[in-house]
Amino acid sequence: MQLEDMILVSVDDHVVEPSDMWEGRVPQKYADLVPKLVPQPDGSDAWEFLGNRSANAGLNAVAGRPPEDYGFDAMAFSEMRPGCYDVHERVRDMSANGVLAQLNFPSWPGFAARQLLRTPDKDLALAMLRGYNDWHVEGWCGEYPDRFIPLGLVPIWDPALIAAEVRRLSRMGCHAVTFAENPVPLGLPSLHSDHWDPFWAACEEEGTIVCMHIGSSGRQVMTAEDAPAGVTHSLTAVSTMSAGADLVFSDIFKKFPTFKFALSEGGIGWVPYLLEKLDTHYAHHRAWTGEDFGGKLPSQVFRERIITCFIEDRVGIENRHDIGVDTITWECDYPHSDSTWPDSPEMLWKQIGHIPDEDIDKITHENAMKAFRFDPYPVRPKEKCTVRALRAEATDVDTGYHYVTKRQSLAATSAALRDQQDRAQESKI
Amino acid sequence: MQLEDMILVSVDDHVVEPSDMWEGRVPQKYADLVPKLVPQPDGSDAWEFLGNRSANAGLNAVAGRPPEDYGFDAMAFSEMRPGCYDVHERVRDMSANGVLAQLNFPSWPGFAARQLLRTPDKDLALAMLRGYNDWHVEGWCGEYPDRFIPLGLVPIWDPALIAAEVRRLSRMGCHAVTFAENPVPLGLPSLHSDHWDPFWAACEEEGTIVCMHIGSSGRQVMTAEDAPAGVTHSLTAVSTMSAGADLVFSDIFKKFPTFKFALSEGGIGWVPYLLEKLDTHYAHHRAWTGEDFGGKLPSQVFRERIITCFIEDRVGIENRHDIGVDTITWECDYPHSDSTWPDSPEMLWKQIGHIPDEDIDKITHENAMKAFRFDPYPVRPKEKCTVRALRAEATDVDTGYHYVTKRQSLAATSAALRDQQDRAQESKI
Repeated sequence: MQLEDMILVSVDDHVVEPSDMWEGRVPQKYADLVPKLVPQPDGSDAWEFLGNRSANAGLNAVAGRPPEDYGFDAMAFSEMRPGCYDVHERVRDMSANGVLAQLNFPSWPGFAARQLLRTPDKDLALAMLRGYNDWHVEGWCGEYPDRFIPLGLVPIWDPALIAAEVRRLSRMGCHAVTFAENPVPLGLPSLHSDHWDPFWAACEEEGTIVCMHIGSSGRQVMTAEDAPAGVTHSLTAVSTMSAGADLVFSDIFKKFPTFKFALSEGGIGWVPYLLEKLDTHYAHHRAWTGEDFGGKLPSQVFRERIITCFIEDRVGIENRHDIGVDTITWECDYPHSDSTWPDSPEMLWKQIGHIPDEDIDKITHENAMKAFRFDPYPVRPKEKCTVRALRAEATDVDTGYHYVTKRQSLAATSAALRDQQDRAQESKI
Repeated sequence: MQLEDMILVSVDDHVVEPSDMWEGRVPQKYADLVPKLVPQPDGSDAWEFLGNRSANAGLNAVAGRPPEDYGFDAMAFSEMRPGCYDVHERVRDMSANGVLAQLNFPSWPGFAARQLLRTPDKDLALAMLRGYNDWHVEGWCGEYPDRFIPLGLVPIWDPALIAAEVRRLSRMGCHAVTFAENPVPLGLPSLHSDHWDPFWAACEEEGTIVCMHIGSSGRQVMTAEDAPAGVTHSLTAVSTMSAGADLVFSDIFKKFPTFKFALSEGGIGWVPYLLEKLDTHYAHHRAWTGEDFGGKLPSQVFRERIITCFIEDRVGIENRHDIGVDTITWECDYPHSDSTWPDSPEMLWKQIGHIPDEDIDKITHENAMKAFRFDPYPVRPKEKCTVRALRAEATDVDTGYHYVTKRQSLAATSAALRDQQDRAQESKI
């Protein structure tokens, strides 16, 4: 097997919603209320909704720019690659990178629909959420059913409504939803509460996977006010590790025996450590805590029910057998700043080129296709799904660097990042 | 090399201070003010100090009890092995476990002298802190200079006083101090502030190592109020990882080029992941963040200046080359509930018996002896330092399980643990 033979299914990328996202997708009475993308005096574009403005901000749309040009902008559509928001251009960028398919997380709504959790009129919020899902499943993924795994939002404020939306999404062919890695910082009951049981029951019935992306809880590790951004950025896996521990110690897996969780963008290199720690804790303490994992080790429960993913993670690949080769998936993270686009095959191959073909196939696409119930082959024959075949379809895509004149200094960028973190912390409604 | 040939130097164990700790070690005017150990109506013993009572609480003195008998007690000295508080019995317990030497963290004062940080009369606090150090260095470690690495407390409320105490300790032959893994939750400036420079300067001059034990900041990961204790316990490494990231991104290593930090009880299996993440972050973001590690990779800085330790950590041992074999030390954690006493050699050998002798020697004692400037051989010839030799000196020690009639139900224990966590959270003075 060679680099060009890989089939790449990425389980974590991002869509920057286009300005017409809700057009024709909410009831007429709400047509004027949905967010509008409005050019701002400083040259940026911002979403305006119910009197609030939110920038389309940050390191979330820098694909195609050289690293020294990264920053809190792009904040205008003109500063982004069209692949950020135009599905046809997105597919061309994917092909140029040899990527067969992607799972796209939302931008404006937040990974756990936080913008809509905050919306006081819950009828409006639900209409918008369904509008987003309709757009995402039909208007975005539906254009290229062989190239996207649909990912729905759930009305996180009401478990009964979540269950109904999981079922509606399933009927639309969408078998994955995005949720908070920890609902507590959002002001909602924890994963240890039975509050969410209707949600889990619907996932169990429909075979829907629940994705928990880093940052989805609105809480990040902040060691100190004056710590450089690198500290928080290097510790993003902490919330993923915490979600993993919460899930293992919760009653969810005992009550609902089959559906799965995906921990998104949290990396994999820490998994062997956490699994050993869970088992050591269990060995030392179960006699007095009464912990019970149905006769299994906690590590076994983790491997059976949780999948993880990585962008670059040599350590995780070397330790794949301690993680569980069947639980590892790959991600590209386009168009965010940690993405390996447009050299993903080359960067990935450096880390996995030496392992057995069987493991490469599982990690690059088979595990993802199984967990997300995604089968592109009826639409696109397998031999057209390889890096080689896809890149041959997109030889005219310009993947070179393009500078954007930065509107913000590094200091302003840091201040804006800090603001964003503060707002995330304050969002306990 | 066989199991019995190992020489074991443990860099993390705990002393339960005896009731006469301060006797004759504070100025006469404070003799009546120091904490007194007072039997309580419920049968426990508690320290009473300035009108406050603090239990000698928790999973910190369970050595010799079967796991089903663990809990928030022992809270009375009669419920503990004498090795918890009696140095002669401690040494016998160490010998029975084949352990040559230990570094002992304090109990009542807190790992970062928090009890004294809270004491309003700072003259009294400093007198008590020096009294503790005098007792620890002379009265505890001094009894057996071949069996203990002394570890001093620092007056965390004043960097100039810290520097003076570091120098005083150094003159007493004590080259290690215990500090907070993050001073921020204690209400103090962060590691990114220059507030602590006098402290670091003294460590640099004296060649003193700074230990950061889990829990020393008073902050633990708490995902939810209703999360089982196992969640927090499985995530103890998070604060250690955070301390590692804080240190690497701080200016400390640039300003003071040689002294070291020890991350205590945080495990090692996560280190390869964090080091790769630090380097990946640096590769993607340095161009716009301007991060500068003096021409080195952040992983290199970590390996040069930080040592880590483990109790049981197969994953870390298997990945020792990615961690840095010269940076790994071992701990026994006597008499806490995660300790491997009295089977430490057997449990450790399972994890390291198959690696090269050279690596075993580094991990079991050579790295610790170097980092902590500890040399027992002038007092005790090397051939008398092995597991075999030490166990032969203590064949009469009873290492069997002894039940203690538990005074607390599991529910009461959990409630007490929660209280303790709450108090830790509230301790921002």
